[in-house]
Amino acid sequence: MIAEIISVGTELLLGQIVDTNAAFLARTLSPLGISTYFRTTVGDNPDRLRGAIDLALSRSDVIITIGGLGPTSDDLTKETIAAAFGDPMQMDDGHRQWLEGFFRGRVGSLPQSNLKQALIPVSGQGLPNPNGTALGACFEKDGKIAICLPGPPNEFIPMVETSVVPILSEHTSGEPMTIHSRVLRIIGVGESSLEDRMKDLMQGDSPSVAPYAKTGEVHLRITARAESRVRCDAIIAPMELEIRTRLGNAVYGVNDETLEHIIITILRERGQKVATAESCSGGLISKRLTDVPGASHAFVLGVVAYANEAKVKQLGVSEEILRAHGAVSPETAKAMAVGIRQASGADFGLSVTGIAGPDGGTPEKPVGTVHIGLAWNGGVISQHNQYIGNRAIVTQRAAHSALALLRAYLIDPSDPIFDVK
Amino acid sequence: MIAEIISVGTELLLGQIVDTNAAFLARTLSPLGISTYFRTTVGDNPDRLRGAIDLALSRSDVIITIGGLGPTSDDLTKETIAAAFGDPMQMDDGHRQWLEGFFRGRVGSLPQSNLKQALIPVSGQGLPNPNGTALGACFEKDGKIAICLPGPPNEFIPMVETSVVPILSEHTSGEPMTIHSRVLRIIGVGESSLEDRMKDLMQGDSPSVAPYAKTGEVHLRITARAESRVRCDAIIAPMELEIRTRLGNAVYGVNDETLEHIIITILRERGQKVATAESCSGGLISKRLTDVPGASHAFVLGVVAYANEAKVKQLGVSEEILRAHGAVSPETAKAMAVGIRQASGADFGLSVTGIAGPDGGTPEKPVGTVHIGLAWNGGVISQHNQYIGNRAIVTQRAAHSALALLRAYLIDPSDPIFDVK
Repeated sequence: MIAEIISVGTELLLGQIVDTNAAFLARTLSPLGISTYFRTTVGDNPDRLRGAIDLALSRSDVIITIGGLGPTSDDLTKETIAAAFGDPMQMDDGHRQWLEGFFRGRVGSLPQSNLKQALIPVSGQGLPNPNGTALGACFEKDGKIAICLPGPPNEFIPMVETSVVPILSEHTSGEPMTIHSRVLRIIGVGESSLEDRMKDLMQGDSPSVAPYAKTGEVHLRITARAESRVRCDAIIAPMELEIRTRLGNAVYGVNDETLEHIIITILRERGQKVATAESCSGGLISKRLTDVPGASHAFVLGVVAYANEAKVKQLGVSEEILRAHGAVSPETAKAMAVGIRQASGADFGLSVTGIAGPDGGTPEKPVGTVHIGLAWNGGVISQHNQYIGNRAIVTQRAAHSALALLRAYLIDPSDPIFDVK
Repeated sequence: MIAEIISVGTELLLGQIVDTNAAFLARTLSPLGISTYFRTTVGDNPDRLRGAIDLALSRSDVIITIGGLGPTSDDLTKETIAAAFGDPMQMDDGHRQWLEGFFRGRVGSLPQSNLKQALIPVSGQGLPNPNGTALGACFEKDGKIAICLPGPPNEFIPMVETSVVPILSEHTSGEPMTIHSRVLRIIGVGESSLEDRMKDLMQGDSPSVAPYAKTGEVHLRITARAESRVRCDAIIAPMELEIRTRLGNAVYGVNDETLEHIIITILRERGQKVATAESCSGGLISKRLTDVPGASHAFVLGVVAYANEAKVKQLGVSEEILRAHGAVSPETAKAMAVGIRQASGADFGLSVTGIAGPDGGTPEKPVGTVHIGLAWNGGVISQHNQYIGNRAIVTQRAAHSALALLRAYLIDPSDPIFDVK
């Protein structure tokens, strides 16, 4: 079964709103065995909306529209679909009465413009909306289905779960196929080098394996198509094992697992703690670590020491080191890591010092120069990175690399990069 | 001139990525007088991509594709557009040499798969990409233009500014209509109260005035349509003056100006400095302040004191205060602000302590309880806020309110909220 998502709204076309609904809906359709080949965004214009609907009807089995169910005159989605399906609409009296009560308690009486939010297809069905005034609608003709949903995410998301999934599951019951994906998050391997090492695995269809690049890492998506979720998992598992065998510790997480989530989880399990000393990353490392619920059990202290004086006073970096090597140097990174570890009493001290730009670069230390330090009981190392990009990119990559270094130590402290002898 | 945006990538269709690029691009096209009627998302499938391109060519003057310029075999956008335009591609030798140098320094040699990233149209032109390995491309045929851009936002956004805007401005010079917007950023006034106070101003067409609610603030967008940017500015200016007259200091910035940008600018002008002491906001305040280029002149030190011990040791909060009032209290917020000001020697100490959740709430201090402290030469105050939302929302709103409080003091220290007598 092929679905097409049509997002309706001039504010989407003008870029005033980012369309998170469509992504949510797509993630919901895959596990039902429904493929989405096209997604279209169209403004509040009846002709162009009708054109998008007719095109979708010509190439897809299911159309799901998002938005355009509001009370104003430019909200026209339900009316346009009704015309395309040749299914007129009628007033849902129960909903009209509910609307009257709703508005009586707020503005005194039901605004005339809101009345149309109670219209439902004569042959199709209305779809309840527990969080808004607009009913949804489901139209059917010649084996094609159109489902109209409201745009506000707090109305849209519950209706996907309570209306769309049951309706489409019923229609796909004759086609028991499900699509399911698992994403492996990989650090320290570039996208093209990854593809070279995985080329033979990327030829298949179920499972299919596809890479995509993220800032500082690559994700590999393994997707299976089968009659059930359990069967999909059984198809994905051996492929995941093969990839993990080839890449080893470079696979750091799956699906939504972040580096900070993995770090906090390991530290909590072991009863250990970390403290951070940041310069150019400005607090992003501590922010990411404390984004994890329960971080307070594993994160004790972060210091953002921008000024040299703060590095000396708060972190105990010696003035000789700063004078001899500069604030952006392996020596300072190591001294910051050792200093924050001592000041906090944490098991690990993690530091970053670098030049985020746009100013401050020199021929020897250009913008993008970053030194990371990691101190533990018995050792300290530094790592030099050179990034290309603006201030935001350098900051993000610096924080990401620092978290990756700590995670690498937690996973395998015997890795040669941690050999301080 | 009509443009159509085609976002390419199976990860977009599957909903694994939210398409923020397309929204950014749409916002850029409007001021050039270019209307967008349709936006299409299509997967990494050559036939369906070709279908989307042919359809777009039939109804639009400009096609802009986003994504599918990577090195892997499913990255096919440039090749597909080249076929649709009948314009073959050739190797850009300069870029190939740059790629060789780039990869030599990283993985030893240029992977064969990356070679195609240096292909450019024979009749059209290649578009430089300062932040990535893939060149963009611009094709032209029969008055139609197609521009291919890479998908990673850090590559995409700069190329919109440095390539798309110049190319399209040149083509639209014969069509003098321009749309231009100016956004007023407002803090401390709710969206519905704002609408009540601005209702009479929101009836117009050019300028139109429309409110947008954001986390912790509201934006008012004033949009004018006229034959030139200068004329748009002249239409917008009196409306802006009227709004500012009504709202006073509640208007804190325009367009992309952030609270942190304004704070750093004022502090630098005055030769003053700030230091931060954070608990629940986890470093987000220092991160936001240091996101501003040149922040090092005005930001000296940030401490993220999660553990009580760190509050005592790093910030000099007395154990009696923590015992008597708890870590989340007006007294602790004030002691943190005073403590960081003293420890850093900064002119201002800004602090946040609160309960971000999901754990840690009590009936007296539920999740969302936040106290902000601000210390200056001669005074210290605290502000109590109660937020509703998850950990991420509480954290964001806490940081935003803290920055708003500092900005309010910098703008008008005689405001009664800063009266400590």
